[in-house]
Amino acid sequence: MQLSDRVQKMQGSPIRKFNPIAIAAEEKGKKIYHLNIGNPDIQTPPCYLEAIKAYNAKTIGYAESPGDVNLQDAIIDYFAQYDIKLTRQNVLVTNGGSEALSMAFNVILNEGDDVLIPEPYYTNYHTFVTASGGSVVPVQTTPENGYEWATEAQLEAAVTPNTKAIVCITPGNPTGRVMTLDEMKIVGEFAKKHDLWIIADEVYREFVFDGKKPTSLGMLDDIADRVLIVDSISKRYSTCGGRVGILVDRNPDFHDAVMKIAMGRLCVPTLEMIGATELYRLPMSYVDSVRAEYEARRDVAYEELMKIPGVVCQKPGGAFYMTIKLPVESAEDFLIFMLEEFEDNGESMMFTPAAGFYATPGKGIDEIRIAYVLCQDDIRRAMELLRLGIEAYKNR
Amino acid sequence: MQLSDRVQKMQGSPIRKFNPIAIAAEEKGKKIYHLNIGNPDIQTPPCYLEAIKAYNAKTIGYAESPGDVNLQDAIIDYFAQYDIKLTRQNVLVTNGGSEALSMAFNVILNEGDDVLIPEPYYTNYHTFVTASGGSVVPVQTTPENGYEWATEAQLEAAVTPNTKAIVCITPGNPTGRVMTLDEMKIVGEFAKKHDLWIIADEVYREFVFDGKKPTSLGMLDDIADRVLIVDSISKRYSTCGGRVGILVDRNPDFHDAVMKIAMGRLCVPTLEMIGATELYRLPMSYVDSVRAEYEARRDVAYEELMKIPGVVCQKPGGAFYMTIKLPVESAEDFLIFMLEEFEDNGESMMFTPAAGFYATPGKGIDEIRIAYVLCQDDIRRAMELLRLGIEAYKNR
Repeated sequence: MQLSDRVQKMQGSPIRKFNPIAIAAEEKGKKIYHLNIGNPDIQTPPCYLEAIKAYNAKTIGYAESPGDVNLQDAIIDYFAQYDIKLTRQNVLVTNGGSEALSMAFNVILNEGDDVLIPEPYYTNYHTFVTASGGSVVPVQTTPENGYEWATEAQLEAAVTPNTKAIVCITPGNPTGRVMTLDEMKIVGEFAKKHDLWIIADEVYREFVFDGKKPTSLGMLDDIADRVLIVDSISKRYSTCGGRVGILVDRNPDFHDAVMKIAMGRLCVPTLEMIGATELYRLPMSYVDSVRAEYEARRDVAYEELMKIPGVVCQKPGGAFYMTIKLPVESAEDFLIFMLEEFEDNGESMMFTPAAGFYATPGKGIDEIRIAYVLCQDDIRRAMELLRLGIEAYKNR
Repeated sequence: MQLSDRVQKMQGSPIRKFNPIAIAAEEKGKKIYHLNIGNPDIQTPPCYLEAIKAYNAKTIGYAESPGDVNLQDAIIDYFAQYDIKLTRQNVLVTNGGSEALSMAFNVILNEGDDVLIPEPYYTNYHTFVTASGGSVVPVQTTPENGYEWATEAQLEAAVTPNTKAIVCITPGNPTGRVMTLDEMKIVGEFAKKHDLWIIADEVYREFVFDGKKPTSLGMLDDIADRVLIVDSISKRYSTCGGRVGILVDRNPDFHDAVMKIAMGRLCVPTLEMIGATELYRLPMSYVDSVRAEYEARRDVAYEELMKIPGVVCQKPGGAFYMTIKLPVESAEDFLIFMLEEFEDNGESMMFTPAAGFYATPGKGIDEIRIAYVLCQDDIRRAMELLRLGIEAYKNR
């Protein structure tokens, strides 16, 4: 029996593929600090479970395909804080930000179309673009330049005749880079010139540091009809396992089209939407407290990183990731060493090799991503283990 | 900006498109008996919410991509009752049966491939097949013959050089037709001859009446590697809003491929899987009681239906649907009459016109689907309203 061409082109997950080696090490008693996946340790706000536990309907029936109206309204109020005015006709609730991305690409891509994505990029973009018959075309960056990408020169060098969309993730995974408003305007002009959709993945929106204010590509009125905003409860509200995402559009043709797919898959779970409604109703002061914690963690991670000779990393401005160039030839080989051979007092640490975040062959081989999703003491220890590990690896 | 060709080929939902007219009628005070959607009124087993309410982890983090292992194990035990032996490597937990279908088609279809589906069919198959670049090719049936389809002659008349799969839903939506073991064998031989995948949508598996025993295409060992079983908590356990489905395969190549997509979308909600685990652990006696209720409802619906002159309907053997040929020219026109003009003591009823369940233009225009998901008294009254409505429509 046949498997589709597109599924054969998909990558396996570079984030999850080293898990078996880590599990084997842990089964032998080694303690591993996991900086390899963006699964926050911050408490899910109690209002989420409280709202769900108060649910007592007799039958848990289908919800409406666009989403629960109370959740839609809470989302509308949340975006109003950014002067982004929405109606229920602009807001589709999805099974995580993942489904929002998947639906967006399915609605806009034909077989053979290209999607511009600055690399290194969140690896699952590749899966979703490929699932819709498209190809990822990378916008080139360098670690030495802090993975800057939103310049006219870089964008024009990357665009192809078949390009139909550009993905902007800000604050960025895996680099932590934050787009400035000027950069957003550059992307907006570029998208208008080439008639592109803009996928604005802003699930880390408020996690911007050093006193900067959160922004959104949705704030630029002249591109409102081509910006598709992806949002989620996973990161802002530390509820990755709730799987509630949002796809915002202000384009009636797009909306009619995406609703065909949304009706096909029926709806998002009723209980998770009840919980998510309470999350979107939380005041910004809640998010401020979470941001402060991530900023402190970033500072610890960066401070410890700068003690390691030969690393290249510009201090990132947001999200909870850093991409780092290491003084090793192969980050994958080094990771296997860290998991299988290295230990210090019975402990080691885990990161994600960054090559899987690149479409360009050969790029990122000596780079890694870390997610600073542990408490500050654990991050300090994990970065110390990284330093000791590099020393041991070089002396092995 | 471009919308994809495939999304433009998708149908809107024929099940949901008349909702605005019904809502308008209800706002004017008319009571409407809804037989138009398969949203059961049976109580969700309390163990579902109880298990969720007992959850108290600090952070609701990502689950494993294949699904929670306890749920996988409960599913394995459930299928063992059918002598279908599975391991965790055969069981993928999905966001409803919908995602199971969507993933299956994405893994097996290339642009331009065909999928055989007996018509009338569950309309969202069209959405999922189209989303993967494929086309639905109908296997022709007639209401006079009880929508029989699984004969060698009908299958061979339908198959095309590009056919890659056949969808079998048993018990059937929208017809209530139940495949016999002999029919399953016919489909199995046909699939082997043409090297097809078999999508076995068995979400109504136990809802078979008249003393027949539930079966599964998964019970045929000689086609195990080509049968993809779709299962769900929605119907068997009256938990449509939980959105937990299952995709079972016994084909390592397929499994590796579908796991790429599953990892891309990360996971299914943690809480819903905790609830679903308890559902799959329920004894068969629970399901027997639900089946008895649906069988009684079918008998009521059929008895009342037979009082209406000119209808064509063979008594269906399972699920909770019937497709019925009415003595009207256009079921859509008649539905609008029922919602906007007809009433008896301030009441009317709603069904789904069946034309949207056909790929063949012009077919099903005088047919409807009803879902007997209300209590017996309400079904009796709804069918009385259907009879009175037809009389009024003919005399208008």
